[in-house]
Amino acid sequence: MTERVRISFTPSGREVRVPPGVAVFDAASWNGIAIDSTCGGHGTCRKCRVRVTGGAIPVSAMDERAFTAEELAGGWRLACLARARADVAVDVPPLATRPKAATVGVGRQVILRPAVQKRAVRLTEPTLTDQRSDLERLLAELDDLELTVDLHALRALPKALRDNDFAVTAVIVDNRLVDVEPGDTAGCRYGIAFDLGTTTVVATLLDLSTGTPAAVRSMLNKQQPFGADVITRISATMLDPAALGRLTGLARDTLAELTAEVCAEAAVDPLTVYEIALAGNATMTQLALGIDPEPLGVAPFVMATRAMPEVLAADLGVPVHPRARAYVHPALGAYVGGDIIAGMLAAGMDRDRRLRLFVDVGTNCEIVLGDGRRLLATAAPAGPAFEGAAIRCGMRATDGAIEVVKITGEDVLLQVIGDAEPAGLCGSGLVDAVAALVDVGLLDASGRLAERADAARRLPGLAQRVCLIGAERVFVLHWAGEPGDLTGAVYLSQRDVRELQFAKAAIATGWRLLVEELGVTVGDIQQVLLAGSFGSYLSPASAVRIGLVPDISVLRIVSAGNVAGEGAKMTLLSRRERAEVSTLLEEVRYVELSDRRDFNDRFIEQLAFP
Amino acid sequence: MTERVRISFTPSGREVRVPPGVAVFDAASWNGIAIDSTCGGHGTCRKCRVRVTGGAIPVSAMDERAFTAEELAGGWRLACLARARADVAVDVPPLATRPKAATVGVGRQVILRPAVQKRAVRLTEPTLTDQRSDLERLLAELDDLELTVDLHALRALPKALRDNDFAVTAVIVDNRLVDVEPGDTAGCRYGIAFDLGTTTVVATLLDLSTGTPAAVRSMLNKQQPFGADVITRISATMLDPAALGRLTGLARDTLAELTAEVCAEAAVDPLTVYEIALAGNATMTQLALGIDPEPLGVAPFVMATRAMPEVLAADLGVPVHPRARAYVHPALGAYVGGDIIAGMLAAGMDRDRRLRLFVDVGTNCEIVLGDGRRLLATAAPAGPAFEGAAIRCGMRATDGAIEVVKITGEDVLLQVIGDAEPAGLCGSGLVDAVAALVDVGLLDASGRLAERADAARRLPGLAQRVCLIGAERVFVLHWAGEPGDLTGAVYLSQRDVRELQFAKAAIATGWRLLVEELGVTVGDIQQVLLAGSFGSYLSPASAVRIGLVPDISVLRIVSAGNVAGEGAKMTLLSRRERAEVSTLLEEVRYVELSDRRDFNDRFIEQLAFP
Repeated sequence: MTERVRISFTPSGREVRVPPGVAVFDAASWNGIAIDSTCGGHGTCRKCRVRVTGGAIPVSAMDERAFTAEELAGGWRLACLARARADVAVDVPPLATRPKAATVGVGRQVILRPAVQKRAVRLTEPTLTDQRSDLERLLAELDDLELTVDLHALRALPKALRDNDFAVTAVIVDNRLVDVEPGDTAGCRYGIAFDLGTTTVVATLLDLSTGTPAAVRSMLNKQQPFGADVITRISATMLDPAALGRLTGLARDTLAELTAEVCAEAAVDPLTVYEIALAGNATMTQLALGIDPEPLGVAPFVMATRAMPEVLAADLGVPVHPRARAYVHPALGAYVGGDIIAGMLAAGMDRDRRLRLFVDVGTNCEIVLGDGRRLLATAAPAGPAFEGAAIRCGMRATDGAIEVVKITGEDVLLQVIGDAEPAGLCGSGLVDAVAALVDVGLLDASGRLAERADAARRLPGLAQRVCLIGAERVFVLHWAGEPGDLTGAVYLSQRDVRELQFAKAAIATGWRLLVEELGVTVGDIQQVLLAGSFGSYLSPASAVRIGLVPDISVLRIVSAGNVAGEGAKMTLLSRRERAEVSTLLEEVRYVELSDRRDFNDRFIEQLAFP
Repeated sequence: MTERVRISFTPSGREVRVPPGVAVFDAASWNGIAIDSTCGGHGTCRKCRVRVTGGAIPVSAMDERAFTAEELAGGWRLACLARARADVAVDVPPLATRPKAATVGVGRQVILRPAVQKRAVRLTEPTLTDQRSDLERLLAELDDLELTVDLHALRALPKALRDNDFAVTAVIVDNRLVDVEPGDTAGCRYGIAFDLGTTTVVATLLDLSTGTPAAVRSMLNKQQPFGADVITRISATMLDPAALGRLTGLARDTLAELTAEVCAEAAVDPLTVYEIALAGNATMTQLALGIDPEPLGVAPFVMATRAMPEVLAADLGVPVHPRARAYVHPALGAYVGGDIIAGMLAAGMDRDRRLRLFVDVGTNCEIVLGDGRRLLATAAPAGPAFEGAAIRCGMRATDGAIEVVKITGEDVLLQVIGDAEPAGLCGSGLVDAVAALVDVGLLDASGRLAERADAARRLPGLAQRVCLIGAERVFVLHWAGEPGDLTGAVYLSQRDVRELQFAKAAIATGWRLLVEELGVTVGDIQQVLLAGSFGSYLSPASAVRIGLVPDISVLRIVSAGNVAGEGAKMTLLSRRERAEVSTLLEEVRYVELSDRRDFNDRFIEQLAFP
């Protein structure tokens, strides 16, 4: 039972659960815990020193060069090479230096070049022979910048100058002077990166001077009552003219509440947050901005815009500095949104020269294939199976959900979130269960569940688990009471298997068509990145077993974590990365599946298990 | 009694009062009455045909060529050459063509090139093979423009397209797409030009498609309760931290009320007003924008800025289109504000090659001298005499104010505003009275009022008017009751004369120093422009008589009208004129008087009457 390991960090007290083999450095980074590094987690700078205080992590060759024998015995390891394969406790030393670069994304190092700049200046005081206006006086000190000026800054200027003997700090966002603060406040500038998911919204407060995360919080999107997926929310706006306003309000409430939480947690004044970045799918983004999403929901699936115009944080209802900017991640298509573009950035899809397949598994599954030179993207309608919907015992990945299923010999082994009594089956558990049953032969290639008699012949220890509920055959994963008593049991039904087959067929058809479109073969794929909150928890072996991803070594199938949120952090930390996003948008070609004549034939081919 | 003539226009029903000799065309133009013209009032296009229906205007040489004998007999005249020297009634035919140019300012012709543009387009509808976003689709049709996009426009776009079979009108202000309207609304675009005076605020609603004014309204600035002049209003903000907010609110209330009035008068939807222009002095401008004016009020008199950053009409509380822009006229110095820059534009100070002196008479008197190549500007603190304040019987130029005073033989002739019983003396009446008394010798060069015995000797018919009130000698202009009964009498006191001497000395010192600074002589001055609401009503002869303006032919002393408002209209009608403003701002040199060592000596020299 090692499918998920727990890393407890001190002194932050934060506990994270990651797939075994993830580097401690990455696990920390994805969860907003700052560890020194200048190389970006590539094992060269030797700065990411941490101490393992509980459990064990093997010593790497680099560790031997970086530490004394005494230190090694004391548990010191380089975090970027320390792979947790069992539960561990790790102590993170305070940051030794203000890093000039921050590590985010999939081991990506981002040179700090935030759009938010501060300049502390002291101006000469005006006289009758030097009557230049306050603004001319200030801009003369900032003449290396070509600034446009916000009225807000102009309003603050006369008093800020005269309250502080003409020593002030100019606050600049992206060549725009947004405020003038009395005295020297140059050390104090923050930003918030939002991953605006249909289900979950995550906010990371970043110290833009150091690149370090100051606080991370997440919560369910308050739009949930309108439906679990984007289509139900779009439908709501089509049925009721007032729904758009309400959905926009709920998105803003979510962002505002998270903003208050991260600022409170880090004791940061929201007025020192001068920029936010937002990565979300096209529907979530349009709803948050108050743009009618209807054309996204009906053919031919048209966005209001790919790249966003200038937006203020206030336009999104985010209560930070009143003139704070919002960098809204652009979208490639109605179903390949800003979250995916952000994820591609974080995953380095534009820079890595290996042929890589990026899959964000969800109700809508986004797929990108490319080698850094050529990039294709598409979206496959996978349906709600992975979210636990339309599955008899399906549920969200919360306490009580079976997230890991293994069949060893004739034992069914389960791992349950929160170590609770099993209450249902979440997406990763569903994939595991189907893969395990295919493996032991109780599901045939067509997806038909074996009859009990057949099971009894081959796997007598499992036969009792094959039952009929009404006319439908099921496989019981967990008996709540005595074996044989279906009350409260958690099971997989024949129809659940069909649902999963439809979902995986849509996805497999998607990446297979991209493979053909790019003129390569499946065997050429060197890495598969599983992105998104669900993708990160999926077992690579099970995904291969059911044909959801290409049949390559499971070592090459990587959980990429919450790449959308990572991408949003990168764009907040660096204008260079923002330029990269624009480049990505130009370079990626969107392939529409819904008008392909061969889609249905290919889809039917992919329904079977390999 | 021909100092002011009345022109009644039909069919508008408007009645205006102007100095005799003003062209009907100019009188109409200043008051927002549109008359056809393509030459700008220079007597060449022969389009400005009007019919004199009451009173008489002589036939000009050009009229003889433009009209038949029958037409001439019927009263037809070219308005630009028709000078009203007595009360007349004039009928204005409906506009024959939409003029491509509008005439504003001092006979200036402005080629229509407003920042507000509308483009009606019909887009091809999206398909599965053409999934361009709505914005890309629209911008492709507008690819001759480099547009930035307002979020507001993006929010309107999807619905506007789909409600109207993809036929929409793009609303563009200065290369910014601010809205998208369903269908073809290209013919409908308005702007409002505001002259934001310390005392009076004037709003002109302009049809930007034709350049014609649709409505004009004025009202007292609601900031009046805080004091009559800029210094008392600045002082208020220094004494009470809440005063800035209140003054800003009152300025906005004034602008908002005028906006509602002009839109109602012309039956124009305020949402079709996409831009406003605002010309005001530096203090009025900063107060309206909510910028602390304190540094304007104390040495070294520093503005927050010369040129304004991008401002929205909403930033000024003007309830028009929510994304309407505000062009705020830049200022040259704390006391040569945006109103003067606008006035210089309207007066063509930058283009006319004659050596001209521009004087805006008021509490603060702005003076500009130049020949189009070199321009100098300064401000002279004239004090409140011209506003009727600090004058015993002083009052504003409203009903009951004596505005014209003449002494013919031994008769005192008065002209009173509103043909009412005289109640007091306004600025132009004050200047007239002093000039007349200097003329007849009852005031000597030093400003001393003759004793009654002395007057009786030389002008026995006037002697009774010389009285003592307390210890102060006065000259009675109007007896309310029996001659000799001072109850309710309107008079000029010795101290009033002193006040006027201080005011005119400050102004005369100002322009004399500019004459020296420019290296010319007073005799070189070819034209004097009297600007502002007060300047327009000043008698040129009286102004010369007391030495307020240079001693040149009164024919060369021109009432320029409300040039600030005219300038604001010009910038609203043409981006070319807006560029001219920027040029003006670069070219005009500001001369500060308050730090000149010779100012006091020169001031004392100028106290005497010539």
